[in-house]
Amino acid sequence: MQIAILGATGYTGLEVVRLLQKHPEAEVTYVSSDSQAGADLSDVYPHLRGVLAHTLQPADPAEIAKVADFALVALPSGISTGLVPGLLEAGVRVIDLAGDHRLPSEDYATWYKKTPPSSAVLDSAVYGLPELYASRIADAKLIANPGCYPTATLLSLLPLVKNGLIDPQSLIIDAKSGVSGAGKALSAGTHFVEVNENFKAYKVGEHQHIPEIERVLTDVNPNGERVTISFTTHLVPMIRGILTTSYASLTGSYSTEDLLAVYREFYRDAPFVRLHAAGSWPQTRDVSASNYCDIGLRVDPRTKRVTVIGCIDNLVKGAAGQAIQNLNLLAGLPETTGLATAPVYL
Amino acid sequence: MQIAILGATGYTGLEVVRLLQKHPEAEVTYVSSDSQAGADLSDVYPHLRGVLAHTLQPADPAEIAKVADFALVALPSGISTGLVPGLLEAGVRVIDLAGDHRLPSEDYATWYKKTPPSSAVLDSAVYGLPELYASRIADAKLIANPGCYPTATLLSLLPLVKNGLIDPQSLIIDAKSGVSGAGKALSAGTHFVEVNENFKAYKVGEHQHIPEIERVLTDVNPNGERVTISFTTHLVPMIRGILTTSYASLTGSYSTEDLLAVYREFYRDAPFVRLHAAGSWPQTRDVSASNYCDIGLRVDPRTKRVTVIGCIDNLVKGAAGQAIQNLNLLAGLPETTGLATAPVYL
Amino acid sequence: MQIAILGATGYTGLEVVRLLQKHPEAEVTYVSSDSQAGADLSDVYPHLRGVLAHTLQPADPAEIAKVADFALVALPSGISTGLVPGLLEAGVRVIDLAGDHRLPSEDYATWYKKTPPSSAVLDSAVYGLPELYASRIADAKLIANPGCYPTATLLSLLPLVKNGLIDPQSLIIDAKSGVSGAGKALSAGTHFVEVNENFKAYKVGEHQHIPEIERVLTDVNPNGERVTISFTTHLVPMIRGILTTSYASLTGSYSTEDLLAVYREFYRDAPFVRLHAAGSWPQTRDVSASNYCDIGLRVDPRTKRVTVIGCIDNLVKGAAGQAIQNLNLLAGLPETTGLATAPVYL
Amino acid sequence: MQIAILGATGYTGLEVVRLLQKHPEAEVTYVSSDSQAGADLSDVYPHLRGVLAHTLQPADPAEIAKVADFALVALPSGISTGLVPGLLEAGVRVIDLAGDHRLPSEDYATWYKKTPPSSAVLDSAVYGLPELYASRIADAKLIANPGCYPTATLLSLLPLVKNGLIDPQSLIIDAKSGVSGAGKALSAGTHFVEVNENFKAYKVGEHQHIPEIERVLTDVNPNGERVTISFTTHLVPMIRGILTTSYASLTGSYSTEDLLAVYREFYRDAPFVRLHAAGSWPQTRDVSASNYCDIGLRVDPRTKRVTVIGCIDNLVKGAAGQAIQNLNLLAGLPETTGLATAPVYL
Repeated sequence: MQIAILGATGYTGLEVVRLLQKHPEAEVTYVSSDSQAGADLSDVYPHLRGVLAHTLQPADPAEIAKVADFALVALPSGISTGLVPGLLEAGVRVIDLAGDHRLPSEDYATWYKKTPPSSAVLDSAVYGLPELYASRIADAKLIANPGCYPTATLLSLLPLVKNGLIDPQSLIIDAKSGVSGAGKALSAGTHFVEVNENFKAYKVGEHQHIPEIERVLTDVNPNGERVTISFTTHLVPMIRGILTTSYASLTGSYSTEDLLAVYREFYRDAPFVRLHAAGSWPQTRDVSASNYCDIGLRVDPRTKRVTVIGCIDNLVKGAAGQAIQNLNLLAGLPETTGLATAPVYL
Repeated sequence: MQIAILGATGYTGLEVVRLLQKHPEAEVTYVSSDSQAGADLSDVYPHLRGVLAHTLQPADPAEIAKVADFALVALPSGISTGLVPGLLEAGVRVIDLAGDHRLPSEDYATWYKKTPPSSAVLDSAVYGLPELYASRIADAKLIANPGCYPTATLLSLLPLVKNGLIDPQSLIIDAKSGVSGAGKALSAGTHFVEVNENFKAYKVGEHQHIPEIERVLTDVNPNGERVTISFTTHLVPMIRGILTTSYASLTGSYSTEDLLAVYREFYRDAPFVRLHAAGSWPQTRDVSASNYCDIGLRVDPRTKRVTVIGCIDNLVKGAAGQAIQNLNLLAGLPETTGLATAPVYL
Repeated sequence: MQIAILGATGYTGLEVVRLLQKHPEAEVTYVSSDSQAGADLSDVYPHLRGVLAHTLQPADPAEIAKVADFALVALPSGISTGLVPGLLEAGVRVIDLAGDHRLPSEDYATWYKKTPPSSAVLDSAVYGLPELYASRIADAKLIANPGCYPTATLLSLLPLVKNGLIDPQSLIIDAKSGVSGAGKALSAGTHFVEVNENFKAYKVGEHQHIPEIERVLTDVNPNGERVTISFTTHLVPMIRGILTTSYASLTGSYSTEDLLAVYREFYRDAPFVRLHAAGSWPQTRDVSASNYCDIGLRVDPRTKRVTVIGCIDNLVKGAAGQAIQNLNLLAGLPETTGLATAPVYL
Repeated sequence: MQIAILGATGYTGLEVVRLLQKHPEAEVTYVSSDSQAGADLSDVYPHLRGVLAHTLQPADPAEIAKVADFALVALPSGISTGLVPGLLEAGVRVIDLAGDHRLPSEDYATWYKKTPPSSAVLDSAVYGLPELYASRIADAKLIANPGCYPTATLLSLLPLVKNGLIDPQSLIIDAKSGVSGAGKALSAGTHFVEVNENFKAYKVGEHQHIPEIERVLTDVNPNGERVTISFTTHLVPMIRGILTTSYASLTGSYSTEDLLAVYREFYRDAPFVRLHAAGSWPQTRDVSASNYCDIGLRVDPRTKRVTVIGCIDNLVKGAAGQAIQNLNLLAGLPETTGLATAPVYL
């Protein structure tokens, strides 16, 4: 496989570069950065000196099509909308890591305050959550790679919603993320002195990942009703990691073990989802720099609610790793190809 | 006022020492540490050399009564039960920062797995949340100083529950704390290498502060029913601070501004509670090293729920500062005496 | 005393505000921020809501002179040069926390790459290191408040150099600072994701504090020769604190105890310098949020060198606290007035 | 190659496990932990569930010899002394990551306060710094894998000392390490609340790595004199990484470029040493989770000294990675086998 990486100097693009270095079937042939075109990637990131050499190019679909079969687009939301049609027309299959192709037009316009892609392109996009949509993904020309929060949230909740074990309208999701999720752009909100030894919420009830989560939950909701959730995001003074704590009312008298059995069955063939036994809980470091999603849960007999905790590395299973998992599916490879490495716990 | 501090070498006791240094009406006359008796406090904590000199003594009620009117007990739960009766009998008024005197006997035994104090002592204890029980506090002989999580949670929710604006049985509280809340004892869970760059939940649905919160919410519940909550605690890789994110279903069509008006009225005379305007949110550093509790909230029109976020410094408003606020009430002083200093934001 | 604080929204200015809140003899009557004039300081820093109210004003010497006797100038280097003459002419005594008035013209031009103040103003400036120049400070109209690195370095070394116990030309100073020393301006070098879990050197041998240190060491050098040092600065992933590790060749066979005795004598009347006994060492947290400077040393019999370690809080003894110590001296107050509080160790 | 890892549950052992997972020629056949024998490694470290399965065994040389050609011993100093003879006698080639086999008997006894190995075993040990001793390493039965501080220090200084460009007796090395270097054992000095937002020196002039560094510097010293250094270690509030800042007097008028040319030549065939151009400096994150050592230097024309800065990941090039580099040499493989992966910068 010959691969183009667009937006390689952002944090997500950089993680795609790191992971593809270890992929036995992928050759990176084109690496773009409009702002730094002409430089080598290791000029921007000295840790890559002597490891990888990639001259940065402008993001030009025609040039890309000459050397790549697949493009992984790690550009900010709003930019990929302009580039993807050209790539598709040139015959390049695209995995878009931005939010542009995950939502219906009206939702994208409302939550992202940007002009959505054309309906034709949107209709061709497949939502790239392999644990749910693997079969659709394999044939897609355009994958909308899921957001970091939606990945952790959906993997935490799909077995419950799809099997009707909770009332999806009761869902409350309290999400926490490391700072790398905010990207490389400078802002007071990512200044070390403002972030360290601090904890805060942001975009309370207004995060653009809300409609993405609701869309998928609605899709799997057995009674077909549109699902509406409470969702709050928080910033943790650490670099990597997302942990979501989800609460929902049970529709019956299920025990913790009952629900764990449902999860085990649901994720029987999902190599990146790992379940904790009752009484044991995930932590973000357990999945650091890896594509795993760790999940633990507990039924509270006092409240008849279930609490589900899910962890991912926001840059890997929440972005670059999941994109490569999708790439493997597009290419007919085992989905773990290049991704089956131990987390960097320490 | 002459003050004894029991357990001065723990993190909470140390914070009592720090805050009382700036108190214009308090003289610290007795400082105990059974394990380090005979040493000076500055031998244990070199940052105090040249600032304060306190020879550490064993915790002896008779000796304490000779030199102190008030004792602030910052010992681990289970220890203060043994010491408080002797102090009370000797005529010393007590503020207990441990959990021993906050719960009915059966709840203490169930959640703390320890032998509760006698009924006579428990019956005399007043729960020391000044924003709710100031009048009872003034005359008390024994104050049960609230826990850190309950303080942040209750201050966040009291105006809603007491005024019947939410269904208290719908309450879900997602709480996050810095590591100082775990105290000075060594454990794998507080080793720097295990905590830093990590985020995790612990004691999910099983934290001993749950019955303390429920007891007070039940006390103010207009319909008198026993309140049961979902409550999850998480560990943030930082030293100080607690932030609670609470979710509840509204009982009517209230706007964010409606609820903020209720909070403003409720906390009109509460000098340490600060409210954020709509769209603005607290963060833990805004209250660091201070006795403030900052609160923000939002009604989500999509879900008909309210989200309330409260922040305190777990060592100050969540422990030592609140103890001094109670001490001021016991002594008939303005409750801000010695506590009206700016947070250490940086 | 009526005090103006210029540049109150920077980190140093903010620390001046925090410390003066606790000063019993100082009234803050003017608080400037050109960029945010018209706002209240608590609009910029919500942690101050309900604690302090200061409407931000432009930095106007004539207006300042109407309400203030003293101005503490916490503006970036290069800006204070333009403001100080107007303040002095209007009869306001000035403590300049920037680097503008610490060096001879040529050194300032060389190391700061900026236009120096006029000779007349420079000649009137007194270097505000109270432990060395207290008598000169008392009568000054203009104090050049020392830099953070020079304060830690000079207090660590003055007893050795002044008493001829080391060869000053052998001095190597390895300095480490928290990130707040870089100020509030946004840069890749202060982005949380770039700084956390990282350690690096910067401005190796080229830091603008080098000539400031050398000037004072030369001033106290018994043989009068110009002192030249090796000096390297490093960035520590923490907010506050400077630690300097200094190495020098001894001029005789002195023991650790010999040297400690010299330090004890030298700092007999210095209330903010605290010495560690042999075998014990300072750490930055021991002086956090306080005006103390902690020092430890060891003679290495293997190399005939002495190692001296000094710690300060860069924002306090390295900036705002030392400015207030100087203010006390200008005003004829005890130098500890408003500054004798316990460090915030936790 | 069949490999035994002894002491797999310590931080260094765990890193050996992580790195060998990616090694194409190594099969891990024996994993020991005396304290947790019988458990699976993923019971101790849940991040390994589903990635690796290794039942922990006692460290039994006879059993090891049945299944392994090489043993990597990641046990505390003092323990490996007892195990290595049995392994060698059983025909297992050993790489000892502890300090036991790096020093002459008397130095080991003096600096480690422990009983040294027998002379016969010590005499057979080869110091495993591949950039200096690659040819000796290839034939060794027992490798003494270098300490973390010596690795960073020696790689920083060897070209200067060996070529007589500095006076080695003038060497001052100021070293800084992340907390993982202190290992997994609990202590007040590694408690998160004591370490975070703190910076301190420890074992000033007394670190047990001093004689190890001096031994090698003496070995390459052109004039054969015993080298004595000043060496100070500091603790940085981060998990991984060592940075050393070294200072020395030049023996001639060399420029920065002169010295860089010497380094380029010296490390021409060293795949893990990367040099920074003049004016650019390494940082610990640039080598994180990798086996690289990054070096930058500057001649200071003012002081006629050179400053050299070296960075490694203490757990990789400072321990586990270097052990695998040595393993490759023992096995006749290219030394980069399994180690040529990009650092985890973020």
